Amino acid sequence: MTQVVTVRRRALEASEERAQALRRSFADTGTLVVNIISSPGSGKTTLLEATLRRLTAGHHCAVIEGDVATERDADRIRALGVPAHQILTGGACHLDARQIEAALGAARLLPADILFIENVGNLICPTTYDLGEDFKVALLSVTEGDDKPFKYPAIFARAEVTVISKIDLLPHLPFDLAAVEEQLRSLNPGAAILRTSATTGEGIEGWCELLVKRLAAKRRATGQE
Amino acid sequence: MTQVVTVRRRALEASEERAQALRRSFADTGTLVVNIISSPGSGKTTLLEATLRRLTAGHHCAVIEGDVATERDADRIRALGVPAHQILTGGACHLDARQIEAALGAARLLPADILFIENVGNLICPTTYDLGEDFKVALLSVTEGDDKPFKYPAIFARAEVTVISKIDLLPHLPFDLAAVEEQLRSLNPGAAILRTSATTGEGIEGWCELLVKRLAAKRRATGQE
Repeated sequence: MTQVVTVRRRALEASEERAQALRRSFADTGTLVVNIISSPGSGKTTLLEATLRRLTAGHHCAVIEGDVATERDADRIRALGVPAHQILTGGACHLDARQIEAALGAARLLPADILFIENVGNLICPTTYDLGEDFKVALLSVTEGDDKPFKYPAIFARAEVTVISKIDLLPHLPFDLAAVEEQLRSLNPGAAILRTSATTGEGIEGWCELLVKRLAAKRRATGQE
Repeated sequence: MTQVVTVRRRALEASEERAQALRRSFADTGTLVVNIISSPGSGKTTLLEATLRRLTAGHHCAVIEGDVATERDADRIRALGVPAHQILTGGACHLDARQIEAALGAARLLPADILFIENVGNLICPTTYDLGEDFKVALLSVTEGDDKPFKYPAIFARAEVTVISKIDLLPHLPFDLAAVEEQLRSLNPGAAILRTSATTGEGIEGWCELLVKRLAAKRRATGQE
């Protein structure tokens, strides 16, 4: 198993180098890049649809979709008139920086103000792979149960933003929102915690404001205001 | 990356050998072993609780819990008076056969009629790891969306049983049950498809009957009736 670990570490290091190159290039163009991670079915694509409907009036957006199989998610994004590229991992459980590079080479996604990367539905493996993003966003839907942050601590410790999604379903579920937010704060005291429902629209405006503020901050920091 | 693949294949082969040894030993004792796989929060532990409440009157049951972190799930099982061992993977995204061997060595779980293994919450990685089980069960909760079988085809093609869980929430969700069952049948025509709600109890009896029948069939096949 030591050999597995060593080889895997080397592969991770190569991937890290690619991620740093991507990060430099996103800084040059002032593109905000958001890496969205969650379990399957937490509502990543649905949140993206609601986000793009609001943001595309004033901002150029683009999306890279990661899935084991099917073009369904990219099709949903393209239906909104937003450029999207589908990466099919064919069984692999996460996206890596090389795949992002290849996607940017293959599809006309840039220039964009905001590039969203929707990772493969998996709360564990995508956590350790840097894609050159500005920050990771973790989604947790209220249907998944209120014990999840402590059961999957790595992603919630690393994500600068956690979006608690599907809050319209709260009346039908035993879900202790305060307990979840306490777990999140203990894992990552500086992270932003948002509550959203793509069905009712609740929280979507706040989430979009956060994105626009982060974009403006990046542009200021890279001298592209 | 070829080296990663080769080394990983060797590790998988070693794990396969351990799985076959486990399978022989479970055949010797006539223990039915069920490997339960789903996304985080599909209701694996809740289904197990409902199952054990029904089955333990007539059957010796035991549980191995796999999680990245926390003993919460094993504690919930032990609260029912059922022996349970918690495997903490510390970041790893699946269980493997060695961990099952070690768990059986460390905890008094056997003899048992039925051993349930609740895998790490992950719809992708656990699929390829044989734990010596009789069959895999995939859970898909209706809150995860009706596109999931085709988006995560490997597990639904391999699981002999798919349990569609949380069906009490159907009135509050856009979820096309017929479409999901059609996807499941096309991926795995011979698999059993069950619909359950641990909240209302719907479908739990049928699921328990399936387990008891499979146990009886295994005992017949291994001459231990």
